[in-house]
Amino acid sequence: MQNQTIRLASRPTGAPTAETFQFTTSEAPTPTPGQVLLKTRYVSVDPYMRGRMSAAKSYVAPFEVGEPIAGGVVAEVVESNLDKLPVGSLVVGNLPWQQYTVSDGKGLQQIPAGPAPISYFLGLLGMPGLTAYFGLLDICQPKAGETVVVSGAAGAVGMVVGQLAKIKGARVIGTAGSDEKVAYLKELGFDEAINYKTANIAEALAAAAPNGVDCYFDNVGGEITDAVYDLLNKHARIALCGQIASYNATEAPVGPRPEGKLLKTSAKLQGFIVSDYLPQWPEGVKQLTEWYSQGKLRFEETITEGFDQIPNAFLGLFKGENTGKALVKVA
Amino acid sequence: MQNQTIRLASRPTGAPTAETFQFTTSEAPTPTPGQVLLKTRYVSVDPYMRGRMSAAKSYVAPFEVGEPIAGGVVAEVVESNLDKLPVGSLVVGNLPWQQYTVSDGKGLQQIPAGPAPISYFLGLLGMPGLTAYFGLLDICQPKAGETVVVSGAAGAVGMVVGQLAKIKGARVIGTAGSDEKVAYLKELGFDEAINYKTANIAEALAAAAPNGVDCYFDNVGGEITDAVYDLLNKHARIALCGQIASYNATEAPVGPRPEGKLLKTSAKLQGFIVSDYLPQWPEGVKQLTEWYSQGKLRFEETITEGFDQIPNAFLGLFKGENTGKALVKVA
Repeated sequence: MQNQTIRLASRPTGAPTAETFQFTTSEAPTPTPGQVLLKTRYVSVDPYMRGRMSAAKSYVAPFEVGEPIAGGVVAEVVESNLDKLPVGSLVVGNLPWQQYTVSDGKGLQQIPAGPAPISYFLGLLGMPGLTAYFGLLDICQPKAGETVVVSGAAGAVGMVVGQLAKIKGARVIGTAGSDEKVAYLKELGFDEAINYKTANIAEALAAAAPNGVDCYFDNVGGEITDAVYDLLNKHARIALCGQIASYNATEAPVGPRPEGKLLKTSAKLQGFIVSDYLPQWPEGVKQLTEWYSQGKLRFEETITEGFDQIPNAFLGLFKGENTGKALVKVA
Repeated sequence: MQNQTIRLASRPTGAPTAETFQFTTSEAPTPTPGQVLLKTRYVSVDPYMRGRMSAAKSYVAPFEVGEPIAGGVVAEVVESNLDKLPVGSLVVGNLPWQQYTVSDGKGLQQIPAGPAPISYFLGLLGMPGLTAYFGLLDICQPKAGETVVVSGAAGAVGMVVGQLAKIKGARVIGTAGSDEKVAYLKELGFDEAINYKTANIAEALAAAAPNGVDCYFDNVGGEITDAVYDLLNKHARIALCGQIASYNATEAPVGPRPEGKLLKTSAKLQGFIVSDYLPQWPEGVKQLTEWYSQGKLRFEETITEGFDQIPNAFLGLFKGENTGKALVKVA
């Protein structure tokens, strides 16, 4: 049985390209006692993975050149030497980008039947959904009537942030990179949505937030963030989740210093990664599942088909090609 | 009885100068029933007052051109029509820069006899000491063995921050602008002190913080802050207290964007002003008084004499002329 693997061919300088990735083929592995053989069903491509392609120290260890790239994967158990994971079980975990993988089951989460499509465990009920949940509800803690801005609002994290803020009774403003995405955000219930590629972002945000900004969930950074900082209310809370605007930068990004604005407003800026909240994950999944089942949360996926399309789906993240969760359906 | 007042002559562009201030003379006022006449004893000059000289919206309302400048003052009651403040009482409050002022007593705090020199109620036991207390102990929460950096360490706030961090068992690094200040910080018990005017600040901080930085109490901003951000440990806490490096800037300061560094470390950056903690002031004064009485806290003042010297003492803040609290002794 043939098994394709995608490896880091070289560390990208600036934007990754097709040459960043190397496909290799080997025999599918055979599970030993205590192991299962997993067949990859869905592969998640996420902006944070760009960081792991660099050698720089960050919150997750770098990928090694020549080694498989790894990330969120939904897989099916196709051979089992492990009682708790019988053949047919569906699991989600951090797994290599390959068609078949053996595992001892550690770090794998079994996907329960029923509540949602299995791919949602890479989205609404997985890392992006929980990132939105803890970043917004623990760090920002929006109150009814407050104004919440979310950048990258049409992404997997952002669209959940906006809907959660609406559940909490806030006024919600999203920024996104196309008119189609803006229209979609309005459909989801965002009060205002701004196409940052065509609008004067500072003017558009000021017009959309006449009472200032109480909470900012930042997935993007750069000029959108500069504009939000000018609108902060006293005791504003900023959840610093991502900086996709600068992930491919070849020089350290420079901009207006934010400290003066944060000082004048007694604002809080909190960087975080969803693993900071690992002990609270089950609580988050439960609440998100409940709101989804009640029709209070919608979710969207951009699904590409075919193992060989994984690099293209990843590269598309930086071109804004996806609305909602970017996934590759493998089998 | 003659009464001199110092007014804002014009809003400064860049650094204030002698021309920023206007002296006027009038008759000392007479207290009506329910009022006291206050004779100014000590005037506090503080970096934050530069912000009030600009028209820009900030956490405290701007001074008006032509109106008296006001700030922290220790005064003595010399005439009284108010039972609770008999003649001879000493008070501290936010009062105009003038020799005599009438007051209905609202917003004035009576200075208890005994625990410390009366001027300390503008320093260790006043706004600067409480700023250090709440910023460090509530926002940074240093733990024993952690590394704390404080910029502007030889100022009224910074020297208290460093000593409080030592009380909590942390390793403490201070930055200051002269070799004399550096020597003084060592005397106070700082583990390391760096003259940012002569050192390569990034190299010196990296050498002084071999285990990284867990807490940063920022009074200064600019390049010192850039260097600290490069050394942050996971879950670092930053109390954003002042930005004296940019208070006289004529253009919005620009620098490396910090968000990427704060994101990678799940760091918290919290802007604050001591009035955010108004309800907890008595607790803070009590604890600082106790540590001072026990000899665990020392304090330093740079006292200039004479009402006419108030503008010079203020301007000296931006030249780093003061060690500890800058005060003017008026009478």
